[in-house]
Parts: sequence; structure tokens; C-alpha cells
Amino acid sequence: MKPGSGVTIVEVGPRDGLQNLTTQVKTEDKVRLIEWLAASGLREIQIGAFVNPGAIPQFRDIKEVAACVRDLPGVTLTALVPNLRGAQTAFESGIRKLIFFFSISRSHNLINVQQTTAASLETLASIMKIFSTHPDTTICAALATVFGCPFEGFFPTDAILRYVEAVADMGITEVTLCDTVGFGNPGQVEEITRACMEKFPEVTFGVHLHNTRGLGLANALKAYETGIRIFDAAVGGLGGCPFAPGASGNIATEDIVFMFNQMGVETGVHLEKLLDATQYLQDILPDMPLTSALFHAGLPKRIDGNGFPRLKERP
Amino acid sequence: MKPGSGVTIVEVGPRDGLQNLTTQVKTEDKVRLIEWLAASGLREIQIGAFVNPGAIPQFRDIKEVAACVRDLPGVTLTALVPNLRGAQTAFESGIRKLIFFFSISRSHNLINVQQTTAASLETLASIMKIFSTHPDTTICAALATVFGCPFEGFFPTDAILRYVEAVADMGITEVTLCDTVGFGNPGQVEEITRACMEKFPEVTFGVHLHNTRGLGLANALKAYETGIRIFDAAVGGLGGCPFAPGASGNIATEDIVFMFNQMGVETGVHLEKLLDATQYLQDILPDMPLTSALFHAGLPKRIDGNGFPRLKERP
Repeated sequence: MKPGSGVTIVEVGPRDGLQNLTTQVKTEDKVRLIEWLAASGLREIQIGAFVNPGAIPQFRDIKEVAACVRDLPGVTLTALVPNLRGAQTAFESGIRKLIFFFSISRSHNLINVQQTTAASLETLASIMKIFSTHPDTTICAALATVFGCPFEGFFPTDAILRYVEAVADMGITEVTLCDTVGFGNPGQVEEITRACMEKFPEVTFGVHLHNTRGLGLANALKAYETGIRIFDAAVGGLGGCPFAPGASGNIATEDIVFMFNQMGVETGVHLEKLLDATQYLQDILPDMPLTSALFHAGLPKRIDGNGFPRLKERP
Repeated sequence: MKPGSGVTIVEVGPRDGLQNLTTQVKTEDKVRLIEWLAASGLREIQIGAFVNPGAIPQFRDIKEVAACVRDLPGVTLTALVPNLRGAQTAFESGIRKLIFFFSISRSHNLINVQQTTAASLETLASIMKIFSTHPDTTICAALATVFGCPFEGFFPTDAILRYVEAVADMGITEVTLCDTVGFGNPGQVEEITRACMEKFPEVTFGVHLHNTRGLGLANALKAYETGIRIFDAAVGGLGGCPFAPGASGNIATEDIVFMFNQMGVETGVHLEKLLDATQYLQDILPDMPLTSALFHAGLPKRIDGNGFPRLKERP
């Protein structure tokens, strides 16, 4: 997607939001949640991860979930795949946009996917070898800890560019830059996203920002101003990485959609319908504290209950 | 203050943070909290409001608090004053920076301070008549609901400019633009702050942004980019307006200082010391949920407990 006025909000709640829960969410509830999210106008939804069920039991029913939602109209379904087997199962399950993830931090990658970053790149190469021949299938790369790592600190921009180059050389054309633990700040987000977009104009970049230290939306705003048009977010603000202590909470989908909608930046998402999805999430996970500010405060409304036009529509 | 690299974070927690509490905070605890905040490097602290104790019982000891902290070195103490009597008492208590507040929304002003906006402007004129002759005293105006009102919706920028003009014509040189109920968005913040700064170059503008719908820091970032250098914030993210339903939580001081410090924008605030102040606040209000993300997540640190340099200091 070229820099234009609109943005794509990628809903990662069913994946990043659910993966750490000790509660096993019922398959039918996952399916209904994805349907609610799709009904709000979200055009891309990450339904889960094709991983060893021993590693993340939450996704042991990923094939059943995929079978139920694969024909949802107008929605691109994606899934995380850590290896060739996961990619194959995802493809067989009808998922046509596969996200291969690895951490540019060797230490974080070893803990998260039990292999070196070099080995992850080899795995990606083997996935590309098979799936780059499928014309309707897209392989994307998600680079974790790009904006900082609890083991290795902050990386020089040049080091980040080398990893982007490595995946771009394999033919990857969509890369998600991830602030896995919420270490990012707007100045750094600008520096890194600008450097990536300038050096790799053939690659479409998205960002996956956590709100761990409250800077999620400020970082997203700066990424938008720099030209990023794809933003991961999780319904209710769920999420976090189990192997990254201190990490908690993606940007809430409701809050980032509210920001962009109010700014007049097209998201395609209907906020009242999205808040219905959030309510459904709260209903199936009644004990889960949701961090979406908009979910708690509600849309700006007159005290008397009558709506008034959002800023861009006012007479 | 002219647009430069540094910002002034105005700590409003002792005022906006405490005013809605039903718990009466002990005078000595308020004083200690202000001392902790000053020790962190905050250069301007709003200690309370000189109002009728019947209206806001929390500030019935405001004179005692002022007497205890008025000689804190290196800190400008401010207080809200709704009327001439409040201004006089504040002045007698040693406060030399008085913030007169009113809402540009007639409905909100009637509920908040029981008078019309026109009457509030007359009150301000009477305060200016007396205090503009004191060379060491500054009268500032805080304009509430500038970014939207739950009774009247959004205001055209021209209407906002007319209120700024009214106070500027009285000789006011410092104006705080307030998002009282968290209706603001970055595009609107840019439009309004730019219009104000362009039309009134002789006035120094600050912003008071609430994080009600999660956009506080994104709005602050945009205000900074537009040239604003003064930001209100409340320790722990406390706050909200009792007469504005749905409003809850100022920008947390910890989070905005973290954002600016990480961006290399000088705040003068030492974050570890500030987090000590937050801990003190939590100790005196153990049941109060604090919304500062940084307070809960902590500063970015290596897993092994060793620090690593913040981004701007990295080798």
C-alpha cells in the first residue's frame, strides 16, 4: 500500500491477544469474535498461530478456527508461522497470508522460538522456496524487538536495516516492525521507519506497537506521519509476549481506530460495531481487564445522549 | 517560553489529581508529595485550588499546604483561582502564579463555576485590575473544553480564538488550552494550537490534555510538533473533572516525561526520582488505581537488572 490518506488496521487480538491466556477460549467463541471483528469493517485479521500445541495450547484448535472463518467475505486472514510445518498447515487450512516471525535479538529469538536468528532466516528461506511459487499466497516477515529488547537493549538502525535486507533479498515484500516490549519512542520510531522505507522502497512496512509504557498511540501517530499505513492492534488492548517480561498490551484497536477516524484518516472501521466486538470479548472473558480507553470511556457524546458530529463532519 | 528543544511539564496532580477524591488527604501527605515531586526536577507544580471549601473540601487546607511549600527552591508554585477572593487568598498565601479557569462552553461553565462565560471574563478582568500591578505576580488563563464539551460538542476554531483574544486583550500572556473531557485528537490539536500561536504570538500557550480515550500522549506529541512547550500532567495519571461525565485521568507525568526524555527532549525531570514520588502517592492512597503505564511497567531495563543507556545516549 502506498502512502495515501487511509490506513489498514490489522486486528491481531485473536492471536497476540489470546496467546498468553491460561483460559482456553472455546473454538466457537474465537470464531464468533473473529466474525464480530470482521463485521466492524476490519479488513485484515490475524486468527492465530500455527505452532506446536505444546508450546501455545491456546492455538490447538487453529485448524478448526480457520475452517470456520476462511470464507468470511472481504477479510484477509493471516496467521503466524514459526516454521515450514506451520506454514504448510496454515496453507492447507486456507490461510493465504502467512507471517513468519523472528527476533532481531539473538537472545530473545533463542527464548521465543528456540533458534538463532541465523537459523530463523534459513527457515524463512525454506518457506519462501516453497510458497513464493503460489501466486495467491503472501509470505510476510515480522521482525521482533526492532525498537528494543529486554536482553540486548537498543539496536543501531544499521543493524535493523541488515535484517530487513536479508528478508527483502529472499523476496519478502511486506515487513512488520515490532516494538515487542514497548521500548519505543516517537523519535526512534520516526528514525527507524524512515530509514527502512527509504532504503527499501519496494517493501511495504507495517508496525506492531505495544502500549506497555503508554506510548503506543504516540508512536503510531509518528509512524503514520513518516508514511506507515499498516498498524497492528488488538481488540480491548489485549496482548503481550510471554517471553518478554514487562511487556503487556498491544495498542487497543478501538483507541487507534478512534484516533484515525477522528483525524479524518480512513480506517474503514465502524467504531460502534467494533465496540460491540469488544463487548463480546468481555462477555467471553469476563475476568479479563481490558485496557482500551475508548471501551471504558465510550465515544464522545452529548450528556443528553444525543450524538454530535465528529470533528471532521461538523458544519 | 519560545519554541526550543526543552519542555516544561507542569505537575497538576496535587490539584487536578486530588480534587475529586472523596478521601481527604492529610495536609502533611500533600506537602510531602509536593516535596517528592519537586525533588524529581519538576519546575512548576500546581498545589491546589483556592475555592470555597464547601465546593471542593479537599482544598480546605490549601493555605496550610501553601505555607509549608512556598519556599521550595527552584519551583514555581501555581494554584487555580475561580474568583477575586480566591486570587487574593492565593496571593496572601505566597502563590505568585495564579491560574484563572473558565470554560468556553457556557453550559459547562455554568455547571462548573456557576456563572456564564461572560461573567467569568468579567471576574478575570477584576482580578487583572488588581494583580497586573504586582510585578512578581502572573495571572494565567486556563480555557476548559477547548477541544470539545459533553454538553455543546466541538467548537469552531474561530470561537476558540475569540476567547483567547478576550483574555489577551486583558493583558494575559500565558494561556492553557484544556481538553477537559478527552475529546481531542491529534489533527484537531494541531489545528487549534497552530491557529492560537499564529494569531497571538505574544501569548505563551500550554496544553492540558486528558487521556480519557487513550489519545493523551499522541495529542501531546502533536502539540509539541506544532510548537507547544508547556504540558500539564498529573502524577500517576490521576484526575478528571467532577462535572464532566466520562472524563477520567490526566496524562500521567511519568509517561509524558518518559516520552520526551527518550526522544531527547529536555524535561529536567529525573524519572527514577519521579517514580519514587509516584510510589509515595500510592502509599498514601493505597486503594487508588494509578493509570501511569510507566509506573506499572517500569523503565526499560535489561532482564538481568543492569541498565542500558536510553536511546539517545547509546554509543
